[in-house]
Amino acid sequence: MERALDKVSETLLMGPGPSMTYPSVYQAMAKPTLGHMDPRFIKVMDEIKEMLKVLFGTENDLVVPVSGTGSAGMETVLVNLIERGDPVLVITNGVFSERQAEVARRLGADVDCLAFPWGSPVDPKAVSEQLNVRQYALVSMVHAETSTGVCNPAAEVGELVHRHGALYVLDTVTSLGGMEISVDDWKVDAVYSGSQKCLSCPPGLSPVSMSSRALEKLFSRKEKVPNWYLDMSLVAEYWAGKKRTYHHTAPINMLYGLCQSLYEIMDEGLQEAVLRHQKMHEYLADGLSRLGIEFIVEKSCRLPMLNAVKVPEGTDDAEARMKLLFDHGIEIGAGLGAFAGKVWRIGLMGNTAREACVDRLLAALPKVMGQK
Amino acid sequence: MERALDKVSETLLMGPGPSMTYPSVYQAMAKPTLGHMDPRFIKVMDEIKEMLKVLFGTENDLVVPVSGTGSAGMETVLVNLIERGDPVLVITNGVFSERQAEVARRLGADVDCLAFPWGSPVDPKAVSEQLNVRQYALVSMVHAETSTGVCNPAAEVGELVHRHGALYVLDTVTSLGGMEISVDDWKVDAVYSGSQKCLSCPPGLSPVSMSSRALEKLFSRKEKVPNWYLDMSLVAEYWAGKKRTYHHTAPINMLYGLCQSLYEIMDEGLQEAVLRHQKMHEYLADGLSRLGIEFIVEKSCRLPMLNAVKVPEGTDDAEARMKLLFDHGIEIGAGLGAFAGKVWRIGLMGNTAREACVDRLLAALPKVMGQK
Repeated sequence: MERALDKVSETLLMGPGPSMTYPSVYQAMAKPTLGHMDPRFIKVMDEIKEMLKVLFGTENDLVVPVSGTGSAGMETVLVNLIERGDPVLVITNGVFSERQAEVARRLGADVDCLAFPWGSPVDPKAVSEQLNVRQYALVSMVHAETSTGVCNPAAEVGELVHRHGALYVLDTVTSLGGMEISVDDWKVDAVYSGSQKCLSCPPGLSPVSMSSRALEKLFSRKEKVPNWYLDMSLVAEYWAGKKRTYHHTAPINMLYGLCQSLYEIMDEGLQEAVLRHQKMHEYLADGLSRLGIEFIVEKSCRLPMLNAVKVPEGTDDAEARMKLLFDHGIEIGAGLGAFAGKVWRIGLMGNTAREACVDRLLAALPKVMGQK
Repeated sequence: MERALDKVSETLLMGPGPSMTYPSVYQAMAKPTLGHMDPRFIKVMDEIKEMLKVLFGTENDLVVPVSGTGSAGMETVLVNLIERGDPVLVITNGVFSERQAEVARRLGADVDCLAFPWGSPVDPKAVSEQLNVRQYALVSMVHAETSTGVCNPAAEVGELVHRHGALYVLDTVTSLGGMEISVDDWKVDAVYSGSQKCLSCPPGLSPVSMSSRALEKLFSRKEKVPNWYLDMSLVAEYWAGKKRTYHHTAPINMLYGLCQSLYEIMDEGLQEAVLRHQKMHEYLADGLSRLGIEFIVEKSCRLPMLNAVKVPEGTDDAEARMKLLFDHGIEIGAGLGAFAGKVWRIGLMGNTAREACVDRLLAALPKVMGQK
């Protein structure tokens, strides 16, 4: 009998994530499972923390890969830092910031949204004005909007948020490992990311970090965190406490994979990896321009790793993507929400940000275009 | 430079989980990552669902491996089915049922605990009496208590709970795949498990299923589920909806692993696997008895896959376990909570329930005993 797993085959992942897993990461994930209290595994955890500190640009004590995908990271920082009734500002310009607002509302926060058009960046001046209108406990934004390919001014907004005394939450799911991130300099109090974007590990883990200001809020909550699984005061005991108290069974082999992907980035050098993303982005942009494919985002605020472009005139969105996938073995991403059917999202994340990947895509695209 | 991952080596995992990952599962996890909307991956998801239905003994439509470890499964069923103020009864006789109570309280439930001594099973008569005292919205229990090695009367309690009109939540983290489970016959409304016990896949996934009665409660909630990541009405759209709407990026390679571990169980036959657990338990019990090591649980309610025994007189708990681990490459589990320092937990889960594993342990144990 043929089984579904037999049909899984190598595919060039140029969508919004997952990206091309490093071959060494597959090998690492296949290392023998250890117990979650094994001293050898504790050392793996310690190395992961130290490497994530470099990527996040932080001296925070609390750096933990949460046992869930990127959205679990979002849930983690918000459920730990929000109490019912807290006034929260979410700055939105895409699916993932709107998701932050939805998560915060479900947690009982009193949420205001400051909305910018999809495809445009956040304007710090408007943020400043909003912060003068109301005193917020927490302000949340996305650094690299995966749904639109826009880079938001994380440092400028951080400066403003701290001036007003609020906690600053930043989503770096798509940017971590592919752009410079300075959690400490940008005054970010809680940050989360995902393993499957520029880290090029499979999905399943969400690196999270919190500042001492964030921990003050966490430890002075009136009620316990209404989510036992993601309560960072408990999770941190296992990841950083002196006694390494068991909380929940860590996803051992996934963490091997994450550890190896971080080795890859350390070996290349973070700056070099960031530079490679930028170079490959420019290389792709040149090629797309020759094919007449247009970006939807102004050059000044484009993300290198997530290239959102207009579906070419006369091309059927879904049909072209399916042809790319099945005839050429290449996945690119569809548009989400308001962009569905109109936008393609081409990922250049981590191990996917290579000349050979871009060349393959640029060779295949003309064969699936203009056939509506 | 030597790195922590280089020191990870094959270890015989005879603790309370993770168990010995099937070699074929490591291979499956190393298959190429696909996108989470790839039609080939959707087929993998569909096969996982069908196989989990067999293991759970259910015709429920909703069967999903939640993107988190076993405790995420606990969080999932409780956060979806509890609303603030709901009267909830948690039947406790170990760490994991006490954790259910803690999760429920954090969700704002009005929790009563019906406590039985650790190491003793739940008494259905006492449950029946308690159910006459108060009308509960939900009653929660653990089938196989991983902290004590006790098997609770899941079918009898289910009958009682339904007679009183409450929803019935059952933890099968340790029993799934190693004992017969009949979610439908036992009238279980929400059940969760873990990938790293009798399924012998690494930790990271929590199979969950909900009955139509549970879904009625979910869809008639007054407020949205206060946890976006684990909201089953959204997760189910991706796993079972006609449009397979994207919710969060699934942990692709972990799901390959789970799929392969389920193939292994299907190939062996579930009944055969269950029988093997029972046989190996008896084989181990004989050997332990020859060594003078005593069980803490009455024979009639011992779990086959989790053997809780007294730390032998004159043996230092931690020292003996560390010697087993580092001199003999065997992990067994420490006691939790009230059992810390007094109890060892010997796991015979999934691929660990083999004669060769038991033989290795029985040969090594005398070498680490009686050296206090």
